[in-house]
Amino acid sequence: MYVNINFNSDEAIYIQLRNQIIYGIATSELQEGDCLPSVRELAEIIGINMHTVNKAYSILKQEGYVKLDRRKGAVVAIDNDKQRAVDEMKEELRVILAKAFCKNISCSEAHDIVDEIFKEFERGQ
Amino acid sequence: MYVNINFNSDEAIYIQLRNQIIYGIATSELQEGDCLPSVRELAEIIGINMHTVNKAYSILKQEGYVKLDRRKGAVVAIDNDKQRAVDEMKEELRVILAKAFCKNISCSEAHDIVDEIFKEFERGQ
Repeated sequence: MYVNINFNSDEAIYIQLRNQIIYGIATSELQEGDCLPSVRELAEIIGINMHTVNKAYSILKQEGYVKLDRRKGAVVAIDNDKQRAVDEMKEELRVILAKAFCKNISCSEAHDIVDEIFKEFERGQ
Repeated sequence: MYVNINFNSDEAIYIQLRNQIIYGIATSELQEGDCLPSVRELAEIIGINMHTVNKAYSILKQEGYVKLDRRKGAVVAIDNDKQRAVDEMKEELRVILAKAFCKNISCSEAHDIVDEIFKEFERGQ
């Protein structure tokens, strides 16, 4: 999996890493049961601190995308707490859609954008 | 406008403040031309540093939600660069919808959530 970190971004590196791993799962580049690179390996490849990779992996565990196996390291494992996912999504969407509404993006335009992005994920399957 | 900052959140205070002001505009609690409180006043009300309020206001200006008037301070003023707004929305939605897709939230469920949130904004009008 190709990871592309923008060191000039306002977004923390561990968040960028977490987001790209989630995107990799959504596009089926990473699948249930796949091992992620070891913390040391990924830190070396990207050129970041091991703590940063650790933080990304811990959050992915906490959010239900990986489990941490003592032998295999981080393994893709999606929990099925859908209600939690829906609640979190509402919270996050509220900010994005408030911005959209202020800028005159209509509900139907928002639907079109949602469809377009879902197609990116479905192509991977 | 009521501002509710969670000091225990992972989200930076200036981001929380920026988000709540945008939400206030979307729900019409704040309208085009309304003056925001002065930096000093808002910092005192919330109990935060003036720099934090300044940072929120600067970002709101940069993102096209307010203009900074030498006499009136920060005034709600939405720019009409819709294409920029659409591009930013796609970027942000991609992460949220990747999470949704991983957690088995369907495209049609995502539409329902979008509709629900848009109704919150339309009620304000």
